Amino acid sequence: MSDAIVSNRPNQRCNNELRPLTFEKGFTRQASGSVLVRSGRTVVLCTCTLEANVPPFLVGKNKGWLTAEYSMLPGSTQGRKPRDKAGKVDGRSVEIQRLIGRSLRAIVNLNALGERTLWLDCDVLDADGGTRTASINGAYVAMMLALTKHAAELGPIESIVTDSVAAISVGIVDGEPRLDLEYVEDRDAEVDMNLVMTGSGRFIEVQGSGEEATFSRAQLQDLIALGEQGIAEITQLQQAALQS
Amino acid sequence: MSDAIVSNRPNQRCNNELRPLTFEKGFTRQASGSVLVRSGRTVVLCTCTLEANVPPFLVGKNKGWLTAEYSMLPGSTQGRKPRDKAGKVDGRSVEIQRLIGRSLRAIVNLNALGERTLWLDCDVLDADGGTRTASINGAYVAMMLALTKHAAELGPIESIVTDSVAAISVGIVDGEPRLDLEYVEDRDAEVDMNLVMTGSGRFIEVQGSGEEATFSRAQLQDLIALGEQGIAEITQLQQAALQS
Amino acid sequence: MSDAIVSNRPNQRCNNELRPLTFEKGFTRQASGSVLVRSGRTVVLCTCTLEANVPPFLVGKNKGWLTAEYSMLPGSTQGRKPRDKAGKVDGRSVEIQRLIGRSLRAIVNLNALGERTLWLDCDVLDADGGTRTASINGAYVAMMLALTKHAAELGPIESIVTDSVAAISVGIVDGEPRLDLEYVEDRDAEVDMNLVMTGSGRFIEVQGSGEEATFSRAQLQDLIALGEQGIAEITQLQQAALQS
Amino acid sequence: MSDAIVSNRPNQRCNNELRPLTFEKGFTRQASGSVLVRSGRTVVLCTCTLEANVPPFLVGKNKGWLTAEYSMLPGSTQGRKPRDKAGKVDGRSVEIQRLIGRSLRAIVNLNALGERTLWLDCDVLDADGGTRTASINGAYVAMMLALTKHAAELGPIESIVTDSVAAISVGIVDGEPRLDLEYVEDRDAEVDMNLVMTGSGRFIEVQGSGEEATFSRAQLQDLIALGEQGIAEITQLQQAALQS
Amino acid sequence: MSDAIVSNRPNQRCNNELRPLTFEKGFTRQASGSVLVRSGRTVVLCTCTLEANVPPFLVGKNKGWLTAEYSMLPGSTQGRKPRDKAGKVDGRSVEIQRLIGRSLRAIVNLNALGERTLWLDCDVLDADGGTRTASINGAYVAMMLALTKHAAELGPIESIVTDSVAAISVGIVDGEPRLDLEYVEDRDAEVDMNLVMTGSGRFIEVQGSGEEATFSRAQLQDLIALGEQGIAEITQLQQAALQS
Amino acid sequence: MSDAIVSNRPNQRCNNELRPLTFEKGFTRQASGSVLVRSGRTVVLCTCTLEANVPPFLVGKNKGWLTAEYSMLPGSTQGRKPRDKAGKVDGRSVEIQRLIGRSLRAIVNLNALGERTLWLDCDVLDADGGTRTASINGAYVAMMLALTKHAAELGPIESIVTDSVAAISVGIVDGEPRLDLEYVEDRDAEVDMNLVMTGSGRFIEVQGSGEEATFSRAQLQDLIALGEQGIAEITQLQQAALQS
Repeated sequence: MSDAIVSNRPNQRCNNELRPLTFEKGFTRQASGSVLVRSGRTVVLCTCTLEANVPPFLVGKNKGWLTAEYSMLPGSTQGRKPRDKAGKVDGRSVEIQRLIGRSLRAIVNLNALGERTLWLDCDVLDADGGTRTASINGAYVAMMLALTKHAAELGPIESIVTDSVAAISVGIVDGEPRLDLEYVEDRDAEVDMNLVMTGSGRFIEVQGSGEEATFSRAQLQDLIALGEQGIAEITQLQQAALQS
Repeated sequence: MSDAIVSNRPNQRCNNELRPLTFEKGFTRQASGSVLVRSGRTVVLCTCTLEANVPPFLVGKNKGWLTAEYSMLPGSTQGRKPRDKAGKVDGRSVEIQRLIGRSLRAIVNLNALGERTLWLDCDVLDADGGTRTASINGAYVAMMLALTKHAAELGPIESIVTDSVAAISVGIVDGEPRLDLEYVEDRDAEVDMNLVMTGSGRFIEVQGSGEEATFSRAQLQDLIALGEQGIAEITQLQQAALQS
Repeated sequence: MSDAIVSNRPNQRCNNELRPLTFEKGFTRQASGSVLVRSGRTVVLCTCTLEANVPPFLVGKNKGWLTAEYSMLPGSTQGRKPRDKAGKVDGRSVEIQRLIGRSLRAIVNLNALGERTLWLDCDVLDADGGTRTASINGAYVAMMLALTKHAAELGPIESIVTDSVAAISVGIVDGEPRLDLEYVEDRDAEVDMNLVMTGSGRFIEVQGSGEEATFSRAQLQDLIALGEQGIAEITQLQQAALQS
Repeated sequence: MSDAIVSNRPNQRCNNELRPLTFEKGFTRQASGSVLVRSGRTVVLCTCTLEANVPPFLVGKNKGWLTAEYSMLPGSTQGRKPRDKAGKVDGRSVEIQRLIGRSLRAIVNLNALGERTLWLDCDVLDADGGTRTASINGAYVAMMLALTKHAAELGPIESIVTDSVAAISVGIVDGEPRLDLEYVEDRDAEVDMNLVMTGSGRFIEVQGSGEEATFSRAQLQDLIALGEQGIAEITQLQQAALQS
Repeated sequence: MSDAIVSNRPNQRCNNELRPLTFEKGFTRQASGSVLVRSGRTVVLCTCTLEANVPPFLVGKNKGWLTAEYSMLPGSTQGRKPRDKAGKVDGRSVEIQRLIGRSLRAIVNLNALGERTLWLDCDVLDADGGTRTASINGAYVAMMLALTKHAAELGPIESIVTDSVAAISVGIVDGEPRLDLEYVEDRDAEVDMNLVMTGSGRFIEVQGSGEEATFSRAQLQDLIALGEQGIAEITQLQQAALQS
Repeated sequence: MSDAIVSNRPNQRCNNELRPLTFEKGFTRQASGSVLVRSGRTVVLCTCTLEANVPPFLVGKNKGWLTAEYSMLPGSTQGRKPRDKAGKVDGRSVEIQRLIGRSLRAIVNLNALGERTLWLDCDVLDADGGTRTASINGAYVAMMLALTKHAAELGPIESIVTDSVAAISVGIVDGEPRLDLEYVEDRDAEVDMNLVMTGSGRFIEVQGSGEEATFSRAQLQDLIALGEQGIAEITQLQQAALQS
């Protein structure tokens, strides 16, 4: 897609080129669904567990729930990241895990789950940018594996999951729109945006921020278009992994 | 602006009509800047305090910082909202205060502040939807009042603040795009979006979510256009308040 | 008691003179009872909420409960007051909210409430001394408003509330007994006392402390007499507010 | 003072009679000052430690500090009392330790301490009412022992300690004023008051509360007079213990 | 084993000699079982309380539980030991209380307790080494006292308690195996080992650690033999105390 | 080594046979040392990070420190393991991480590190028994990789590391001593013991517990001998991994 001979990006990537993205299914065995996602140097372990209960606000409503947790291992960052101490609120992690949960719930029919909770745990083993989008991409795969494993109990997966979900970052770096930012790009981006979309091309989340900067409406449009293209590629890779 | 005779909205508002929005300056006296924002039935007290220090990661860099905190009083909601208990993380509050901080930092030249921190506290006294956008709208006014009060120490305000900032919610309710959702609309919205923009019309934040739903690219465009209009009106009200 | 033309007090007050005290009823709308108390520059928002449950130790006893919480907003003090961090115990706030709760319970017939809890939230918006007494004075008004609002459900208010309650500070500053200390007086007081009494003139609480000092029995008597006079005036202002 | 042959009190005590009160000095050896106080069945271990530093707000002011902590062992109450869990605020303990600290500071010249802190730890081993007053009575003795031990370093004790301090509870039970309430009396008291006074007869703290009840001015006077008498007796026992 | 006239140990003890060990039964009165253990200068108060419930994982299983808590009073150490702050994990205390619980459970038939919990609280009043072993030795005595007191309710003690339990430390100091280390020895020991055994001579726990050092298999054997001798002596002292 | 034709163990293992044990070096890239340990179905990620500071108690002593943290991912166990909540103490994790730290410190010359800290993070991805011993075995490898990477800065590794370290569990199951227990064996073991030893055959830790049971001296000897054999095999596998 890019015909540029010289790229300004790390690793010679074109502006609209994804990092290599792989899904290693069944990486661990205790959780019902487990996948190791590698997106360039970013590595996330996503597991999905099914519990036969729901949070208090749903008890007795014959409806299920889906929730996510996100965390980074201490050794996953450059310079060790201390574990959360008791009582300390890591606002960034809270935001990310709420985003993962909302994204997955958008494609799940909670009424078809019965009074059960799907837990999605996304633990970052190695971080090089894009950990939240890799988490969403892997959480979808881990969830599908868990639902397949429990199909006898839950019924046909098509009645529970209505679409697929994928996520990608886009941003403006050195004035240029780029797809799938890695850490050094993310750090220097003037504008940073995350898109979450369904496999059928509808939006679930659009989150764009100027980082001590602002952006125009035209730039906003360009970023969205670039992201849509990335989402389509990721969706194909997810389907291929699930069918392998 | 609306020529519809019958509105489906609460309070007979048109789909592109803001709630009555007022700024009562100097509502309290201890804080350097203080404003009581009323947006319909939503009431937020925004105060701004200047401290002569910076967080550890900025010490010695001759640069300032700006941070925000957001909280809802227990009596502000229908059914008492318990105060945060020790160790409990209220993810929603964390997200909102991070958003307020980023939004204000986008229009402040932190290098011109010296080693000082601007604290913006947004406490919701009465909640009827739109508390985060009311908080941003008021935080801007409170900050301007505090900077004016400390002008002798800080130098001309124009070198510190590069633009104004305002925020508004838009959403799709019953299939229609609406501006400035109040609580009952927000609760029922299929899509919910918050925009933060500068007075000069550039974007700072775009955050749109489907609530157990998804949205098309065309809907996304409509919502953005509606929000831009609301931001322009709020900007005028902020300027009028500051000049009164 | 003081006929001196020149007063040593801030704002030219006489030693036995209250600060201007007002009650703005219905300041917010979500809570069943809401009042903004202003005592000089001290401003406290008191709200009262009724919940249809009781704490575990009262379940099944056909008796109600009343509890209070007290907090200061960060912008309410000179120099920003940090919010309570997780796990940090603010001993002063704990003492004050226990005092507010005991004071109100002394005039409420909990057996007549049924298994319900009255929550009284006192949030200080601006602090200039006397926040705990302003909180008690306002909490009584907010509670009366809430009980009136729920009269159809709860039955006649006279069977629940047996008297009124008011509170005032007195102290010895520069060797003189003074009524209703504001911040600079409180800070310098040798002796500091808070009285809580009923409208009918009986005592609920007497709390007097020497601040790195001690006091004689005669001084104790003088302070109590001065406080009794202040309580009588506050009681009249509360009744006037409730009847307006 | 009591000529009644039959008493209504537990253990046949007269209304103005203290429980047996003893001070066992040097009960433990690591702390600089240590005393085991027994007041009837109530047993408190008070220790005093001297540290060569002061809290942040006093650094560089050439002045000392005194602080107290109070706790009840799990086995000290009828029915085991759980230890404080992380983040849980035991409001009663906070109030009591603040009272102990204020009481002792009233008789200590902090300027004569240098930049040192006196820590007073009061741990209740067995509880039968009156633990806060036993703690104050013992803390004074423990402090005197510690100051004596460190006299070479601190200089003459008379320049540091300006008086002695003692505390006692009084209350109205079955309509009668009683001195030194034990648990079953405290539980049933209509009015409960704690007095802290110096050995020379001046007041440090007066804390009286109606327990879901109120009291008259005459009752207040009676209780204070009864307490003054008890304080005088305790002061003698403290001096005797220190001189033995 | 030692007939040396001159010992290298503090207090002239022989290498295989226990410190004076005493049990003062009934030291406090609220708890069902209470004993003050003195081992040389180490003093621990052990209390045992019986509660008529079990932790959630045992509800409905007609089986009891036994759990222990261990804590050091602030004044028990040289240099005041701060109390556990909210959220802070004192790993050493956690390890010790888990050890005490396991040790006692090894000799208790939990099935014979019914749905009840035995709480053992070990609070160190004075610390000079060996607090964990003194705690176990005292916890056994306190438990026996509590079970005896509740014998009418619980049935014969023999069906509940299957053996006695005692604990001792041994270590290598200056290259020599020594029994029952006091603080200065423990601090300097190259190897430190704690043994918990039954009165009938079987092992419950063996915990040996090199302190920035290692040890050979022969040294391991010597230490175990020395500990076995100490346990036998302690067992006799426990039985004597219980029969007195 | 085993000539038994039929084994009672899961997976047909002989009583003295280790599970397959592998070390995948460089599994992640941010941490200086990283290894994925697989011991049967147990999978642990061990990373080692070097920081240029020491804890407060070592500042200015020209000596280094080594510390470890251990945690289990939520999806690593059968039935999801909730993450540590603020303020909750997971005593088991605390014990394990203290053990890992002590074990590694026994073979490291902290004086040769300078004022630096070695952090060892052991995160369990999949748990099937033996996670603490797998953690120690991997931590040693991760540390060696980190020290090799920083050799230019730290000097020759031989002056810092004095030996190797390995750990293994042994236990009595169905009356038989077994090596390297997996989960179902650990759950049913009457006696459970962990040994930590150096590559040269000296002991660092011996921790044996009866699980609601006791054991004889002869059984203790047998278990130690069995563990020594396993340690020798693991030491060879570690050396092979480091040299590959």
